[in-house]
Amino acid sequence: MTLEEALALDAADPLAPCRDRFVQGEGLIYLDGNSLGQLPRATIEATGELVRVAWGEQLIRSWNEGWIDAPARVGAMIAPLIGAEADEVIVADSTSVNLYKLIVAALRQAQQRDPARKVVVSEAGNFPTDLHIAEGAVAAVAGAELRVVERGALADALGADTALLLLTHVHYKTAERFDMAGWTKAAQDAGALVCWDLSHSAGAVGVDLNAAGADLAVGCGYKYLNGGPGAPAFLYVAKRWQDLLHNPLSGWMGHAEPFGFADGYAAAAGMKRWLTGTPSVLGLGALESGLALWDGIDMAQVTAKSAALWDIFHAAGTAAGLECVTPQDPVKRGSHISFRHAHAYEIVQALIARGVIGDFRDPDILRFGLTPLTLSHADIWSAGQMLIEIVESGEYRRPEFAVRNAVT
Amino acid sequence: MTLEEALALDAADPLAPCRDRFVQGEGLIYLDGNSLGQLPRATIEATGELVRVAWGEQLIRSWNEGWIDAPARVGAMIAPLIGAEADEVIVADSTSVNLYKLIVAALRQAQQRDPARKVVVSEAGNFPTDLHIAEGAVAAVAGAELRVVERGALADALGADTALLLLTHVHYKTAERFDMAGWTKAAQDAGALVCWDLSHSAGAVGVDLNAAGADLAVGCGYKYLNGGPGAPAFLYVAKRWQDLLHNPLSGWMGHAEPFGFADGYAAAAGMKRWLTGTPSVLGLGALESGLALWDGIDMAQVTAKSAALWDIFHAAGTAAGLECVTPQDPVKRGSHISFRHAHAYEIVQALIARGVIGDFRDPDILRFGLTPLTLSHADIWSAGQMLIEIVESGEYRRPEFAVRNAVT
Repeated sequence: MTLEEALALDAADPLAPCRDRFVQGEGLIYLDGNSLGQLPRATIEATGELVRVAWGEQLIRSWNEGWIDAPARVGAMIAPLIGAEADEVIVADSTSVNLYKLIVAALRQAQQRDPARKVVVSEAGNFPTDLHIAEGAVAAVAGAELRVVERGALADALGADTALLLLTHVHYKTAERFDMAGWTKAAQDAGALVCWDLSHSAGAVGVDLNAAGADLAVGCGYKYLNGGPGAPAFLYVAKRWQDLLHNPLSGWMGHAEPFGFADGYAAAAGMKRWLTGTPSVLGLGALESGLALWDGIDMAQVTAKSAALWDIFHAAGTAAGLECVTPQDPVKRGSHISFRHAHAYEIVQALIARGVIGDFRDPDILRFGLTPLTLSHADIWSAGQMLIEIVESGEYRRPEFAVRNAVT
Repeated sequence: MTLEEALALDAADPLAPCRDRFVQGEGLIYLDGNSLGQLPRATIEATGELVRVAWGEQLIRSWNEGWIDAPARVGAMIAPLIGAEADEVIVADSTSVNLYKLIVAALRQAQQRDPARKVVVSEAGNFPTDLHIAEGAVAAVAGAELRVVERGALADALGADTALLLLTHVHYKTAERFDMAGWTKAAQDAGALVCWDLSHSAGAVGVDLNAAGADLAVGCGYKYLNGGPGAPAFLYVAKRWQDLLHNPLSGWMGHAEPFGFADGYAAAAGMKRWLTGTPSVLGLGALESGLALWDGIDMAQVTAKSAALWDIFHAAGTAAGLECVTPQDPVKRGSHISFRHAHAYEIVQALIARGVIGDFRDPDILRFGLTPLTLSHADIWSAGQMLIEIVESGEYRRPEFAVRNAVT
């Protein structure tokens, strides 16, 4: 592809106007929106006003003027992006904390139905916090255990002792995407529940939890949803489970009457029981502002543009001699692309030095987020050219590119 | 006291310059800093720059430029306010979530030492989330139970089966303050650990966890520490326990190598193991800015001014015929004052209508935060005069003051 062809795709791109709604750094091509989404321009004023007016002037009165309902209100904004009803999603805590809540709740519910159901099945190489949290969660339920198997062994691992199948929809490293409907059915056919981690798929690809019949899900606010660094996360509980599952982190914000100040805990109805402590109001405000950009966006256009961006960058990476580890079939992947190379770290650093920000994942993966709302086809073409130059010229071999950072 | 006398106290007040470091609303006297602390002026620019520059321009690179260390760095800023070493405090999640971590960890540790130690003892009428979370925490440890007793029965409740004594240092309603050293000793003499909730004492009164020999503590960032609505909370683990206690919410940020991406969990050394998911960067930034105001503040002056403000408002409330439920002895209370009145709700609403913001706590408590950094003696005198007028004139009986809000 030539630059002219990329520019022609931009000229015909219905999502092209979205790019200017984000702060775009001079000389920067940001291919890490799958790790930390870019800053929406409107969020500068929205968070500024939240601090100056809602906190600074209205102070405690703001709890009655929008803050107390923010977890449900912002959750309802996420719902259409993941195929959920508005009252099946709420925003709270971090993805890790929400995973703990749902895994423990699902284990307890499964054991009530059948004491033999005590195993959480998950995938080796799943995003580490999912496995780490599952380790912690099984320790909180007598007899429960975690079984981590390779992707190819997942189907055989489901059985009469399975309580929960815990999968990340789009793999954080390779972008491989599970067939949500197929794996939901496989778990349920085995008598288990399924919990989907949507961190790399919400806002990246079309997700339809209800169409798949999914039971539970969690996801991240700071990637494709552009909610800001450490944005609060979300959780989804299918309506049929909402009365039957209980939050082990039974804090006051999940109480039926948080301001009744009773000693005993009584779970709120619906999704509110998944709240625990006082929510992060600044985080919720930034996330709400980021989600506002999704209003009116056609996910089919997002999916189509993601595929077009992917093709451009895939061609460049391949031309540079990198090994692509992301599936070629668009329905089998998310919206990032990963390559393997023995000098992955150094190449990523050399790209950063040129203003192309991707990231490195141990031990040998180069990962690039292709976020359709914030990037043009020409951006991807230019980044691809730089990747080719850096690899072909050996530019990445400069000593400064081997220096390791705390966060890579 | 006359207004002139109050103004004379202000003229001699070494903390008087602090007041202008906060946004002060025109015609507003804010006596709710114990619920949501006021906005430091510097936080407007600090959070604005965090959004515009660190997020908007530096993007993912900011993780290597201060974000990843923020939980420990901000924790170290809290340490001197609570009598802890810098490496005994870390900022994470909410107070409720942190309570869950420490209660479960303490229960498991106690049972390792002695399987008979399985009871968490706490006080009836403690802040509800402490009791609610304790309910959830005991459910995560086989055989554990929660025993909630009246304050007068606490000493007798400690015994050979006690794993943990869970107390809130300053009571959220009445401002009664426990003798930290005495109750720490009582718990330890009984062979138990103690966990202090410092939400209403950090930044309100002098706290010395190390001098008291305390084991564990949690506390809130959005009250006297002025960290903003829903600010992240902190937790403290005495150095002697740091290797022996484990975070049940074992997420990737508490891993020894978060960016090694291993499947198995391995706890980080020191306080980092108490992190769970990706921290709220916006929340940490606002909290850090709020804590910067405490640098160089003499807690003895804070304590003395708190007592002076208390005396002024106590005299007013008593003159208005309200029943004070806060102890008269300054060492037996925090930095708020509470009164009981059958029309507490309406009086609070009438005060708010006049620009004096306190709060109501079910069923009949009027509560007023006396925050020495943000308030002058004249502020308190004026608020006291309005309280007297509202009660004596029956102004609070207007029908609009009986309308209930979601958050009171």
